[in-house]
Amino acid sequence: MRDDLAFAVWSRERQQRIEDVLDRALAGAPGTALVEAMRYATLGGGKRIRPLLAYAAGEFALADPALVDAPAASVEMIHAYSLVHDDLPCMDDDTLRRGKPTCHVQHGEAMALLAGDALQATAFAVLGRARLADTGRACALLAEAAGVAGMAGGQAVDLAATGCSLTLAELESMHRRKTGALIAAAVELGAMCGGPLAGAERQSLRDYASAAGLAFQVVDDVLDAEGTSDTLGKTPGKDAASMKPTYVSLLGIAEARRHAEVLRTEAHAALARYGTRGRRLVELADWIVLRQH
Amino acid sequence: MRDDLAFAVWSRERQQRIEDVLDRALAGAPGTALVEAMRYATLGGGKRIRPLLAYAAGEFALADPALVDAPAASVEMIHAYSLVHDDLPCMDDDTLRRGKPTCHVQHGEAMALLAGDALQATAFAVLGRARLADTGRACALLAEAAGVAGMAGGQAVDLAATGCSLTLAELESMHRRKTGALIAAAVELGAMCGGPLAGAERQSLRDYASAAGLAFQVVDDVLDAEGTSDTLGKTPGKDAASMKPTYVSLLGIAEARRHAEVLRTEAHAALARYGTRGRRLVELADWIVLRQH
Repeated sequence: MRDDLAFAVWSRERQQRIEDVLDRALAGAPGTALVEAMRYATLGGGKRIRPLLAYAAGEFALADPALVDAPAASVEMIHAYSLVHDDLPCMDDDTLRRGKPTCHVQHGEAMALLAGDALQATAFAVLGRARLADTGRACALLAEAAGVAGMAGGQAVDLAATGCSLTLAELESMHRRKTGALIAAAVELGAMCGGPLAGAERQSLRDYASAAGLAFQVVDDVLDAEGTSDTLGKTPGKDAASMKPTYVSLLGIAEARRHAEVLRTEAHAALARYGTRGRRLVELADWIVLRQH
Repeated sequence: MRDDLAFAVWSRERQQRIEDVLDRALAGAPGTALVEAMRYATLGGGKRIRPLLAYAAGEFALADPALVDAPAASVEMIHAYSLVHDDLPCMDDDTLRRGKPTCHVQHGEAMALLAGDALQATAFAVLGRARLADTGRACALLAEAAGVAGMAGGQAVDLAATGCSLTLAELESMHRRKTGALIAAAVELGAMCGGPLAGAERQSLRDYASAAGLAFQVVDDVLDAEGTSDTLGKTPGKDAASMKPTYVSLLGIAEARRHAEVLRTEAHAALARYGTRGRRLVELADWIVLRQH
């Protein structure tokens, strides 16, 4: 119980911290329509799961939390831009996000497109100026997670798969790119802020991120099938309505939940030997799987 | 005359070179719809003015041309993505680009959106892995040129200005962001590939890029007003049709051409003291102003 409380405090503190970091990173030229749209899409909402993973991985690598701010913010900006573009009429055509009208509903389609574009650019501006040993490599890692081999590539597969049936392996491969790659980047960039890790430690983090990232998506599918817009803050039941293959459509809700539990166990196992160094990452895996929205 | 010929050979060689670099950078996962859309939007067309500026600035800084390949390609990918998103129905809604159907006409709107997004990411993946002294700073420079203070910010101003009248100063400020910032980044990134420059040399390059970048836009406005789709490879007369303020709408064609000439003289003057080191940049300023498409 005390442990749960400690995690709640830890995560709340870091959620507030990343909110401040993002607020400062997006403070330039306030009042202009573009910056307002970028701030609307990024601030004041979201679980901040990727920044939390970056901070937790930073703790694993004994990093100064202040160094993690920039990578954590850059990953969250990539995530925020992807939601803005995902919601556009030519993609998911969604009107509700984080309990508010989506960015294009609020700011118009053209400005939402530009806000997403500028958020992606700002992510690399922030990361490129970070105080890391190798910011060029950090930028490349984030870019690869966001690009063809990662998020954008996974979304393109998702687009092509709508209305089709995928095997479980194909579904998993798509999600490893669409959401897993950016989650893995959050963990890797956070860890890069600390002292150099041994090869085995880096591999453990990768194993952890791989399981936690996939678990996140499995649970997302379950919540989409079970949820209401009140609990989700976004339109529920969209996957089924749009004929998208999901873990629920392939496995059913109960089996999908069991699958998420297996992945949670894998995430724990990857870090079992590291004791308290991996504590926040382990707790985040629990949160990812046990969350209600 | 021999000089002109030499420039024609130099530019053709580098246009071929950047085509190969881009081809290799976009070779991953061939056959997938996303990569095909990215290649469609990037390869086999375009004046490659930004890569040429990067190579020419590299020569100014006595850089190994091979080092300039990655920055040159990254700037061109940012440019290519911006064209794809600019042409989308919610922006300029254009159907013709470089003499071919625009990316969304050919590949669908959703795939064009993703292709633009992935091209931006790939630009930073390529630049982050470049062999430069400070790739993180290079990524930040490119990101700032592409973001709120640069290209995306200028496009947002452009969007808001449609149907409005701007002063010449406002128009210039918009274009310095919309097209000038990325052109300046091409010059700066190319120069970063060589030995460190003195402060005065860097300032001369900035003065050059500022004049050449603005001249590029002035001439673009003139060509849009005068051109046919055969010579332009894109829909002409769009600016007037969409009520966009341009140098032509503010100054008329003759005065806009004179303005471009003044800027060409400024670009020359910035590099006059450097002799042959600045030769290609000077020739590129001529090309920018004297081109017919």
